[in-house]
Amino acid sequence: MDEKKGVTAKQDEDFSAWYTQTLLKTELADYSQVSGCMILRPYGYAIWELIRGFLDAELGKRGVENCYFPLLIPEKLLAKEKEHVEGFTPEVAWVTHSGDSALPERLAVRPTSETVMYEAYSRWIRSYQQLPMRLNQWVNVIRWEFKHPVPFLRTREFLWQEGHTVHPTRESADDEVMDILHLYKRLFEELLAVPVFEGRKSDKEKFAGALYTTSVETFLPNNRAIQCGTSHALGQNFSKAFDIQFLDKDEKKKYAWQNSWGVSTRSIGIMLMMHGDDKGLIIPPRVAPVQVVVVPILFDDSKTEVLKASKGVAKALKKFRVRLDDREQYTSGWKFNEWEMKGVPLRIEVGPKDVKNNQVVLVRRDTGEKTPVGVKDLAKAVEALLDDVHSSLFQRAKKRIDDCVVETEDYDEFLKALEDRKLVLAPWCGDPECEDFLRAETKGVKSLNIPFGQEGVGNCVRCDRPAVGRAYFAKSY
Amino acid sequence: MDEKKGVTAKQDEDFSAWYTQTLLKTELADYSQVSGCMILRPYGYAIWELIRGFLDAELGKRGVENCYFPLLIPEKLLAKEKEHVEGFTPEVAWVTHSGDSALPERLAVRPTSETVMYEAYSRWIRSYQQLPMRLNQWVNVIRWEFKHPVPFLRTREFLWQEGHTVHPTRESADDEVMDILHLYKRLFEELLAVPVFEGRKSDKEKFAGALYTTSVETFLPNNRAIQCGTSHALGQNFSKAFDIQFLDKDEKKKYAWQNSWGVSTRSIGIMLMMHGDDKGLIIPPRVAPVQVVVVPILFDDSKTEVLKASKGVAKALKKFRVRLDDREQYTSGWKFNEWEMKGVPLRIEVGPKDVKNNQVVLVRRDTGEKTPVGVKDLAKAVEALLDDVHSSLFQRAKKRIDDCVVETEDYDEFLKALEDRKLVLAPWCGDPECEDFLRAETKGVKSLNIPFGQEGVGNCVRCDRPAVGRAYFAKSY
Repeated sequence: MDEKKGVTAKQDEDFSAWYTQTLLKTELADYSQVSGCMILRPYGYAIWELIRGFLDAELGKRGVENCYFPLLIPEKLLAKEKEHVEGFTPEVAWVTHSGDSALPERLAVRPTSETVMYEAYSRWIRSYQQLPMRLNQWVNVIRWEFKHPVPFLRTREFLWQEGHTVHPTRESADDEVMDILHLYKRLFEELLAVPVFEGRKSDKEKFAGALYTTSVETFLPNNRAIQCGTSHALGQNFSKAFDIQFLDKDEKKKYAWQNSWGVSTRSIGIMLMMHGDDKGLIIPPRVAPVQVVVVPILFDDSKTEVLKASKGVAKALKKFRVRLDDREQYTSGWKFNEWEMKGVPLRIEVGPKDVKNNQVVLVRRDTGEKTPVGVKDLAKAVEALLDDVHSSLFQRAKKRIDDCVVETEDYDEFLKALEDRKLVLAPWCGDPECEDFLRAETKGVKSLNIPFGQEGVGNCVRCDRPAVGRAYFAKSY
Repeated sequence: MDEKKGVTAKQDEDFSAWYTQTLLKTELADYSQVSGCMILRPYGYAIWELIRGFLDAELGKRGVENCYFPLLIPEKLLAKEKEHVEGFTPEVAWVTHSGDSALPERLAVRPTSETVMYEAYSRWIRSYQQLPMRLNQWVNVIRWEFKHPVPFLRTREFLWQEGHTVHPTRESADDEVMDILHLYKRLFEELLAVPVFEGRKSDKEKFAGALYTTSVETFLPNNRAIQCGTSHALGQNFSKAFDIQFLDKDEKKKYAWQNSWGVSTRSIGIMLMMHGDDKGLIIPPRVAPVQVVVVPILFDDSKTEVLKASKGVAKALKKFRVRLDDREQYTSGWKFNEWEMKGVPLRIEVGPKDVKNNQVVLVRRDTGEKTPVGVKDLAKAVEALLDDVHSSLFQRAKKRIDDCVVETEDYDEFLKALEDRKLVLAPWCGDPECEDFLRAETKGVKSLNIPFGQEGVGNCVRCDRPAVGRAYFAKSY
């Protein structure tokens, strides 16, 4: 691969330049003509399809059904739940005209679908026998932020799934909030090899209109935290605003309990930032569009045998996502560099000597380690190595995050650690005023979440009032 | 099922009332608060997922890759190809504001994605080695029509797949236009049991900006024709407007040849209209979200055995999309009616006598025919019956359409047949002026398409000039 094609930015020198350059050069994503709206190229979209496959299967087991609600939401509908509309209207993209005509009422391009869905729920739901009702949709949403856009992490349009469920009791709703939160943890840890921590968002940081919000969060190699996914208990806030009532077993009419939860294409960006290195991407095997690339080492006198053997190898591995790179216009070295940049977790080299010895050479993207393997045992060896690459990526990320955690009850140490761009865990009161104060004092640091089961941990690191738990704080996206 | 829940409108009396009532009562779709934008409920969305599964597999075999391009298109980009912008701007929904601020340039909510994709193609494509390039996306689009909306058939927002491919030669592009058209024919005939006819659209009816458009069309039981899917040859119109050039093998720079092609959720509406009857829907087995429903006939003295046997039946059929309806609050008769209304192609009744005789009763939705089948042979019998239901639905629809075709070279007969709401096939010159004249004369009848291989068929039915072929005409959606 020529200089111009490889990644030239270094993570240590300019992480953000490394990130965007890598996304563009690997043909995973691209900019569009509208600032903040990106193109997901096939190599990037394939990752989203794998994430979707995992979640669809898991949600299906739980009785969640997919559906589709309209993109456009009338303003008066969006305004029905007071906190919700206040939270979202500053970022709404408004459709005001069709062709040359002004519309009678402006329409919001959905920033999230609570309002448009719950208007329908109020017409559909009559009896406890219909509950719990669990719908999900895979859609695009628009939030017209004015912060600096970052591909995948902060874009004005993104793709996500949004689940919207209705329950007869608070218990049923609460149980599901945690079940989905754990599912999101599994998605990040078991698929994306991204370690996350679960917890409850502060009142200031919860979803606009929610009773409470839970989240999984992580801490990236550039020492910034990021929210990975959220599972909200909406309580009865929306069922009261939208009049979603059901006749219960006891023949009394009751307001329903609701949840909503979502994970977006942001997950892809988090995964890419977490694992990449100066050579480019490292994609964890379970979401790698190409898990194994077979590269024949071609010389004039052995080309036919080597190509034949390489095809055999690719065929023997067809249960994996395998690609045979038999292009003749590029050298093997050029191909090694390209597939390393693209983050393919495992490369298989097939040379003339290998063919003679009935073996191939496996090369791991994460460590560069080379292992000769007999052709007979190949599928097993590949399976084991892919699992090992996943575990190693996860462990490496986990260690890096753990090494950044500072636990403290001392306010000066707390401020110092944040200035040093650490991930800080400290007892906290959870009060919105205290959070405002902290944010001003630290130039924008926010609480991430409050891990569960942390009651009685002492007094708030800042204001000394009784803490509701220990909370994570860090500079974040 | 009580009166109120069943379909009360009759196809013969008011087809359109029958259609909407059925969609709503089967919980397949619903209206939203924005006129012309509908909700796809899980039972309807599941059909779309099955269509998507079929097309994704077929397109994958052809090397087509999925991707995602932004929803919003700057006005100046939309305007780059002259015919295209003229065709689409009257129906564009415009985003003009974000939050309280006016945007510097208004943004179109995509009515189709040629322009936003081809701006990127012009940056990506350099060499013949990258061609053919074949991308596809599954997305929502908005076309703000002012005609009366019809669920699925004519809605302001709809879901579709749009393929956009780039070829080095006209031949390669032409071949693909036909290959995709045949694939769409297979989708309609082999999955949806909808007979379609292939052909080329007239110059007046072709896609805005295309060199030529091919289509599959059909004729519905309410004697209206409808376009089912289109495969467009864009020629070099867009590659010249967007400067998509590649360096060919001969080291010369050339403008690329492009195609685009799409099928939308309209296909679901066509299928539902084609097969339903006064009891409700009849969904062809290959796209039925529930292919087989098992209904236990419960009496107090044999409940346990019957339920157990029913569960066994459902388990033995798990390779099908099977549902066991063991709800106890409804009678068997009520359930029969509900599942008939919902169009499940096959019902299995399990009663106490059946359990004794080690058999079940299979009931076809299309004919009502009942067949007792031994439990041992069940899976085979179900598979055969589902295939037969598919073929019968297709044949019945085909006969009904064939019976409506009037072939004529006589203009008076031509006009009479159109007035009688027939599907008319007549030699035609294809001239846009002649089409305008015909349309005025017939109160809005359009040419549907011109079947291939019809050269030298005589003179135009209206203007007597040499015909380009025989064309289909009918009152259409």
